This record gives sequence, structure tokens and C-alpha cells, in this order.
Amino acid sequence: MSCIFCKIITRVLPGYIIAEDANTIVFVSLEGHPIVAPKEHIPDIFGLNDELASMIMNTAREVARATKEGLAADGIYVTQTNGVAAGQSVFHYHMHVHPKWSDGRPMDRSEESRKRTMETVRSFLQRQV
Amino acid sequence: MSCIFCKIITRVLPGYIIAEDANTIVFVSLEGHPIVAPKEHIPDIFGLNDELASMIMNTAREVARATKEGLAADGIYVTQTNGVAAGQSVFHYHMHVHPKWSDGRPMDRSEESRKRTMETVRSFLQRQV
Repeated sequence: MSCIFCKIITRVLPGYIIAEDANTIVFVSLEGHPIVAPKEHIPDIFGLNDELASMIMNTAREVARATKEGLAADGIYVTQTNGVAAGQSVFHYHMHVHPKWSDGRPMDRSEESRKRTMETVRSFLQRQV
Repeated sequence: MSCIFCKIITRVLPGYIIAEDANTIVFVSLEGHPIVAPKEHIPDIFGLNDELASMIMNTAREVARATKEGLAADGIYVTQTNGVAAGQSVFHYHMHVHPKWSDGRPMDRSEESRKRTMETVRSFLQRQV
């Protein structure tokens, strides 16, 4: 198993895991924002089936709201890359949920900030109905 | 009705419509790439319910494949903005499906290219099982 996301999912590597269920996982990226991924190793969008695509999208939708509320963001930018030509660097499907602020400030990538983002987004995810 | 996407959906304005069903529509953006949107006027990801989010994601998944195959793209970059701070300019939820090529060439935005993209992606969507 050489996939870094599979290693985070199976706890071979540590990760700031926000939430997980049987099929999806949410953790904090190295850049400091939440990422939503399937637990199964599927390289890109072309390998998703209907059911898993739906689960990922609905997890992402909840994470987007929790991230906006929890981090007091002004907007949320969702991105997802497929193929080197599109900028993909980890070949395990994942959706980025980037919080954006009106003052244009960048995401804090420090360990402390990543840990705080994990805790805050997790807390706001649990508040949702 | 001031929303430009609602006007395309209801044919008040012309648009290069690739496909549609009862709940979603796919058309070519002014930038030349496919866009997936709900027919209902929902401003952003926070207004989607589970069912509609699933339909949009699965339409986008099919459009991603048809765009890659039809336009012989090397990768697909999916983006979706929520809020001015995230770069949103049309406040009707939409997912961008950007084809990307290894040589880095930009999307052709000409009318001719947009029309050809509509026809090609539509044709490749219909080939999918």
C-alpha cells in the first residue's frame, strides 16, 4: 500500500481526521483545509459509482457548511482534480473544501491550526441535523 | 427573474445546452467548458438537499467522463464556488467541469468551439451506459 490517503485511513500514518463513516472519511489536508475522500482506493472521479459519488457529495455538502460556520469563512471553494494535467498529485479521489475569507487571507498550515480546524469542523458537523 | 442561469434553463436566453432531465441541466459556459446546475434556483451548496446533491454529482461524474473522452482531454478539473469570497459570480449553484490538457492549452471560448463542445459532449454522454 503506497497511497498516502490509504495510510491515513488505516491509521498507518497519523492524520487530523475530522469524521468518518463506513464509506467516506474527512480529514485536514497538509494545506490546512478539509478533504473528503472515499475509504476505498479509487483514483479519480471516473472510478466512482452512483452510490459512492452521492455519499461523497453529501458528506462534502455537510463539511462545506460546518467549515463555513466553524471557521467563520465568507465563502467555500470546492475543487477536485483528476489526472496530472488537472493538477492531481495524490491518486486517491478527494474533494477539497477550501474556506475563503473576504480579506483574502490564506489558510494557516501550521500543525496547531490544522488540529484546531479538525476539532472545530468536527464540532460543527455534529451540530448539524 | 434576474438569474441568467434560470433564463437559460427556461429558454428566455439562448444557451448551448448539452443535456437536461427533470432536475439538472448541463450547458456550455461562456468560458467554453461544461457546467452542471440544478434547474431549481438554489444559490449555493448550502441550499442543496441530499437528493439534489446526489443527482448533481452523478450528472457531473458522467459529464466529466464524456468531456474527457469527447474532447480528448488529459485531465478534468472540477470546481464549484460558494460566495463572493470564493469567486462566485452567478448565484445559482453550478459545478464547473474543466477539461485540461498536458500541453496546458486554454479552452477555446469562441462560439464555434462552444457549439462543438455542446455537440461532442452530448454525443459522448449518450454513449455511456
